[in-house]
Amino acid sequence: MTDDLAARVRETLRSIPDFPQPGILFRDITPLLTSSGLLPRVVAWLAEQCTQRRADRIACIESRGFLFGAPLAERLNLPLALIRKPGKLPHRTIRQDYALEYGSDALEMHADACAPGDRVVLIDDVLATGGTANAACELIEKLDAEVAAVLFVLELGELDGRALLHNRPCRSLTEV
Amino acid sequence: MTDDLAARVRETLRSIPDFPQPGILFRDITPLLTSSGLLPRVVAWLAEQCTQRRADRIACIESRGFLFGAPLAERLNLPLALIRKPGKLPHRTIRQDYALEYGSDALEMHADACAPGDRVVLIDDVLATGGTANAACELIEKLDAEVAAVLFVLELGELDGRALLHNRPCRSLTEV
Repeated sequence: MTDDLAARVRETLRSIPDFPQPGILFRDITPLLTSSGLLPRVVAWLAEQCTQRRADRIACIESRGFLFGAPLAERLNLPLALIRKPGKLPHRTIRQDYALEYGSDALEMHADACAPGDRVVLIDDVLATGGTANAACELIEKLDAEVAAVLFVLELGELDGRALLHNRPCRSLTEV
Repeated sequence: MTDDLAARVRETLRSIPDFPQPGILFRDITPLLTSSGLLPRVVAWLAEQCTQRRADRIACIESRGFLFGAPLAERLNLPLALIRKPGKLPHRTIRQDYALEYGSDALEMHADACAPGDRVVLIDDVLATGGTANAACELIEKLDAEVAAVLFVLELGELDGRALLHNRPCRSLTEV
C-alpha cells in the first residue's frame, strides 16, 4: 500500500536543524538507504508510476537523484540520462542556467542523453523550491523529448515547488 | 559469460581526450547507462561478486559510484552506505584525508553508516590511481567494519591503483 510506504518513509527520515545553513531544517534521506527492505519498496513505487506514464527513458539529477534513478532504470531496463553540475559530463553537453535565492546555478546533460519524442521520467530525491527540477525539465525539452512525469520521494509542501514545474505531471511518494 | 560482458562494456565506453585536463584520456561510462540491457547485466555481475564475498552491506563513492552501488543494494536488499565529498552529509560524520598528485582531498561517511563487524563491499565506477578508493576503505575500517571486497566496473591498468588498496580483495569487470 502506498499509504503504508509513505508513512514508513516519513518515519525513517531524519531532520537536521541548521544544515547546510542556519535556519534550514534539512531532511536527510540516508536512513531510508539503510532501513531494511525500504529502498526496494520505494523503487517499486517509482517503477509503477513510470509504467503508468509509459516512460521509455529515466533521467536523474546529481547526486542524490542517482540513488533512486539508477535502481529504477535497472529494474525497468530503461536507458538512464544523467543531469549533472557544470563541467562533470565529458562529451558534448547542453546547459540550462537557473536562478537561486541568491545568485544562479546551472545543470548540464549530454546532448545524446535523450532523443526527440522520448517519454522521459525525471527523478530526484526531494522537491524543494522546484528550481533544479524545472531546469532539468528544460534540458529534456530542449532535446525535443517529453517530460512524461517528474517523481520525487519527498516533497517539502510549504515551498510549493510544484508551481515552478508548471503543468508537467508531478508526483511525490510522501510530503512533509 | 563475464568475458562477453567485459567485452561489451569495453566497446561501449567512450574515450574523451583532454578531459578534465589536457593530457588525460577520460573514459566515459555514460553510454553504458543508455545501452540496452547493459546496466542490469553489470549489476548482476556485481551482485554475484557480493554473494561470493558474503557481503552484508554495500558502500559507494559519490557520484558515479552511486549509479552502480544503489541498484546493487536494491537488488540484493542490502543497506547502502554513502561516501561523499566533505560537507555533503548532514549528520555526524567521520572523515579521511588523502593525497592527490597536487594537493589533497577528503571523503566523509556518516558515523552510523556501517557497524562493527559488517562485511562491506565498496563500489566505484573506475579504479584509477586508487587514492579515493583507499580513503573510502579507511573510512569503513575506522568504523570497525571489514572491506569484504572493492569492486569496479572499469580498471585503468597502467595506473596500478591496486597497489594502493593493499591486500583488500579487489575485482574489476574489465580493464583498459
